[in-house]
Amino acid sequence: MRILIAGIDGYLGWPLAQHLTVRGHTVAGLDALLRRDWVAEMNSDSAIPIASLDERLAAFEQHFGSHLTVYRGNLLDYAFTRLALAEFHPDTVVHLAEMPSAPYSMMDAAHAAFTQHNNVIGSLNLLWAMRDAAPAAHLLKLGTMGEYGTPNLDIPEGFFEVEYRGRRDTLPFPRQANSFYHWSKVHDSHNTQFACRVWGLRATDVMQGVVFGTRIDAMPPDLPRLATRLDFDQCFGTAINRFCCQAVIGHPLTLYGTGGMRRGFLPLRDSVQCLTLACENPPTAGEYRVFNQFEQVYSIAELAALVQEVGRSIGLNVEIQPIENPRAESGDHYYNPDRQHLLDLGYVPSNDIRGEIRQMLTDLRPHADRIHKYRPALIPDIRWDGKRSPSQPLA
Amino acid sequence: MRILIAGIDGYLGWPLAQHLTVRGHTVAGLDALLRRDWVAEMNSDSAIPIASLDERLAAFEQHFGSHLTVYRGNLLDYAFTRLALAEFHPDTVVHLAEMPSAPYSMMDAAHAAFTQHNNVIGSLNLLWAMRDAAPAAHLLKLGTMGEYGTPNLDIPEGFFEVEYRGRRDTLPFPRQANSFYHWSKVHDSHNTQFACRVWGLRATDVMQGVVFGTRIDAMPPDLPRLATRLDFDQCFGTAINRFCCQAVIGHPLTLYGTGGMRRGFLPLRDSVQCLTLACENPPTAGEYRVFNQFEQVYSIAELAALVQEVGRSIGLNVEIQPIENPRAESGDHYYNPDRQHLLDLGYVPSNDIRGEIRQMLTDLRPHADRIHKYRPALIPDIRWDGKRSPSQPLA
Repeated sequence: MRILIAGIDGYLGWPLAQHLTVRGHTVAGLDALLRRDWVAEMNSDSAIPIASLDERLAAFEQHFGSHLTVYRGNLLDYAFTRLALAEFHPDTVVHLAEMPSAPYSMMDAAHAAFTQHNNVIGSLNLLWAMRDAAPAAHLLKLGTMGEYGTPNLDIPEGFFEVEYRGRRDTLPFPRQANSFYHWSKVHDSHNTQFACRVWGLRATDVMQGVVFGTRIDAMPPDLPRLATRLDFDQCFGTAINRFCCQAVIGHPLTLYGTGGMRRGFLPLRDSVQCLTLACENPPTAGEYRVFNQFEQVYSIAELAALVQEVGRSIGLNVEIQPIENPRAESGDHYYNPDRQHLLDLGYVPSNDIRGEIRQMLTDLRPHADRIHKYRPALIPDIRWDGKRSPSQPLA
Repeated sequence: MRILIAGIDGYLGWPLAQHLTVRGHTVAGLDALLRRDWVAEMNSDSAIPIASLDERLAAFEQHFGSHLTVYRGNLLDYAFTRLALAEFHPDTVVHLAEMPSAPYSMMDAAHAAFTQHNNVIGSLNLLWAMRDAAPAAHLLKLGTMGEYGTPNLDIPEGFFEVEYRGRRDTLPFPRQANSFYHWSKVHDSHNTQFACRVWGLRATDVMQGVVFGTRIDAMPPDLPRLATRLDFDQCFGTAINRFCCQAVIGHPLTLYGTGGMRRGFLPLRDSVQCLTLACENPPTAGEYRVFNQFEQVYSIAELAALVQEVGRSIGLNVEIQPIENPRAESGDHYYNPDRQHLLDLGYVPSNDIRGEIRQMLTDLRPHADRIHKYRPALIPDIRWDGKRSPSQPLA
């Protein structure tokens, strides 16, 4: 299968390229390399050193024995996007090329506008380019479980059947996102669904949980140039990844509020497994399907306790420090999302979060100096009310 | 009340400024004058001649005895938008400053991207500017009934209570729009709802039906410089307005397909009445409320028959010609939207569509030469599949 990964230089894109190549697929990439700039803007860097794209590609060819073409440019440029599709002729386009941070989008008017412009218009251009240059290809688009918010109902996979005033219909499940970033992904989902209906495109929209982890099996442990990034700053570091970085430098794990917020999580290896299943089992022409993609639901407090437990078992001094939650979100809510579609396709959850955390701590310990250097980036100061003020410790 | 109308140079904004001034409010405007360019791009012009903005403002001051400040600039410019709000100190911001055409947004990749960028980022900037410079003001934002699409259920006003797998919640009613323009308005509605929740802004989101008509009572019949525009081209001319323009030049009324599509409609005078009621009865801080705003539901075929009937009664030769529907939409569907909220505030539907159409035909007859000059713009060639091809007559 010919698979084009938009966002191939990112946290997910780079390991996915390796996994798909090992599976025998012909992979190409597309990237504007913006993630590197955004993390630098946060006065931070990847905890695990990553090579330049040129070095990555040389190492890739050397290790996997196949050349990886990367189209360097931006989805905001429709002509570039269309040309890349016309030249590569993909069977599948995996779209990971969005700005992925909620706090980044809540910083100020300019960052909110940047986020929605970058994500919505970039994705819209991709839809048109597929219509114009690759109408039979499968769009595998990365959404987020955060699109749903936390309704007081079970969360189905995209659609639900409703009875209202005596009539029945199957409707899109209403989205209630909680940041301008998460809303940008909702907007993309809606545009994508419409493009499938009106042009007969086919798409899988993946509502993905929060990803953690430093490696997958396809990634050779002894080739640092093939390693993927691991961010820990307040914008691009997600909960478990940030906790693990804090644990290896003896920094208290910063729990936002009570940590009672419940979310779906999955290891990097499960994410790559699921995306591959979606690629290899495409929808039919005109079909728009939604997969909820996560391994398990945890509260943030449970995850901090798990990192503490595993950290202590390998001799790290790990404390947990609740701090003011910079976000406006409920710390006590119902949360019961479905995740049946991927299981039906053969997804086998790895079900070993302690082993995954142990691997992460082992991979991160040699880089404690890098994390320590950027430790101010660990404390959030972007608040959902639009002000900047570092979160203070709670009693 | 101090009311800032964004989009004051448009079809609704200009009469609304007059009506609100007569009601004793202090009105200002904001506009980038783009509508004039968009209609010119369609090789068309307003059927009723409109004056330049400077001429309009001079006539306004002369007739109403009050000066009208208009901030000339674009909501895409956050600094400009914030400055206008900081200087005028509005109690209410009426947001009519979006690109309003579905076909325009379906023309090609560039027009789709322009539409969503202009509407979504402009509205997002307005939300941030209100948060930063007018957080207590009421945002009265123009959405469209087209955001809902045509579900097989009654359409409530924004929210509905659902039971699902034995649990209950009040959720946003799912939107199923049918063009990238209509989706841009859905995206705006979502961003607005979120801004109310997270910042405590207050907003009324008006899901408006299709507006028709040439005048309101506040508009003096003998002052052409105070007249509002009336478009008839395939992008900016809506159904009844286009039918009336066709009727006065002896052009067959172009019915798209069977004309079985049912939509909510309202005269310009009802739109202005409803918007005024919303201004004068603002929501509370943090409240996000949705009003469905239309007078009556009609099928397009019924409207063509009404224009034919009224046209013939005043001696016009009016034929109806079904043509290929350039849109992908159902011509046979359930449609039963609520519209209770505005009635509760005192909305009195004018309930005289024949009188309204007669007035329109009377106002348009003197300008038959202008309409005739641009008559090619009456035939649609922008199709929902992204191709350009003039709709052919149906048997």
